[in-house]
Amino acid sequence: MTTLVIGNKALSSWSMRPWVMMRTLGLTFDERLIRLDEPETRASIKDESPSGLVPCLIEEDGTTVWDSLAILEYLNDTRGGVWPEDGALRVHARCASAEMHSGFSSLRGTWPMDLTTEGARLAVPFGVRRDLARIFTLWSEALSRSAGPFLYGEFCGADAMFAPVVTRIKTYGPVAMPKACEDYLETVWTCPAVTEWRAGAAKEIEAGWYPR
Amino acid sequence: MTTLVIGNKALSSWSMRPWVMMRTLGLTFDERLIRLDEPETRASIKDESPSGLVPCLIEEDGTTVWDSLAILEYLNDTRGGVWPEDGALRVHARCASAEMHSGFSSLRGTWPMDLTTEGARLAVPFGVRRDLARIFTLWSEALSRSAGPFLYGEFCGADAMFAPVVTRIKTYGPVAMPKACEDYLETVWTCPAVTEWRAGAAKEIEAGWYPR
Repeated sequence: MTTLVIGNKALSSWSMRPWVMMRTLGLTFDERLIRLDEPETRASIKDESPSGLVPCLIEEDGTTVWDSLAILEYLNDTRGGVWPEDGALRVHARCASAEMHSGFSSLRGTWPMDLTTEGARLAVPFGVRRDLARIFTLWSEALSRSAGPFLYGEFCGADAMFAPVVTRIKTYGPVAMPKACEDYLETVWTCPAVTEWRAGAAKEIEAGWYPR
Repeated sequence: MTTLVIGNKALSSWSMRPWVMMRTLGLTFDERLIRLDEPETRASIKDESPSGLVPCLIEEDGTTVWDSLAILEYLNDTRGGVWPEDGALRVHARCASAEMHSGFSSLRGTWPMDLTTEGARLAVPFGVRRDLARIFTLWSEALSRSAGPFLYGEFCGADAMFAPVVTRIKTYGPVAMPKACEDYLETVWTCPAVTEWRAGAAKEIEAGWYPR
């Protein structure tokens, strides 16, 4: 069976992306969760993933795909359904996903994904506001092209890429945004795959993984 | 005609990637170079590129592709030839490209691409050595799978993604690396598209764009 190696559900934004995509596609896979910030974490990840990073997808034949965006492309090639069928929407979805993959460093650094914390109400420094403004522009463009409810209609790879942004806004927000973005935020937050991921994070909290 | 909006050839590592790929594929395109670090730079880029970043590819029909990796995927969909035909090599090439796209922040921050400078011989701090070690591992794996001369045989998207790393090592090195990587470094440095890009950077220097 296909294995997806991931980090903690409460913390690993990179892991969340292919996981929610694979769940949404209805794929069966073994999940191998390597708990982060433990003495053996680095060695355990290095055993599974050539880059020493999670997520990493491993097929039964040994095929190893070790980056979140590369996993999405791989799933699209081998299973299909990751990107919109429509060519123009697909281009937009891939650009938005790639921009998320390499960018928004202020948002990622200042507001790390953290499902252990609710209503943290951190200050929203300029870099975060600028990143969010760009993200809301992207979302608005996509939603106006597709009419929603997800960015490009059905849940696709771009929604997977932005799912951790949704959790960050839920953790550290609220922040003002266009109505269409608010609706989208709730759509992602409550969709089956994200709900299941959040339930996994809640179990980690119950299990005492995170000091209060 | 297709337009590729880029920044300075001496400085813009992100721009270099799709440019050398498109040249290697033999595609005809208009190049629109927006000079970086000028008072009007931000406004000029924002006019062309929705993310406010270069590179950005614009088709005659208005299709706009605004991220280097998304441009590679778009070219592969519309022109072909960006990724290896062989499935296993394609997976490896996409993972390596995605890892470069989002990672190696020490290398990118400490050793910015800079074709205005030769033999800078900066200190090589640990973060850079660690990033380079991982890159040489990746290159070695790829080259042993393909037998070269490029990472996966013929020049492909992954070579485009790593071309700025080749220029960084030429600027700030030498650094010790396996023989196969040394050969690869020279192969990229002297291939027609990279040679042409470097000639463009030399023209910028001759034109007095960079204070000495």
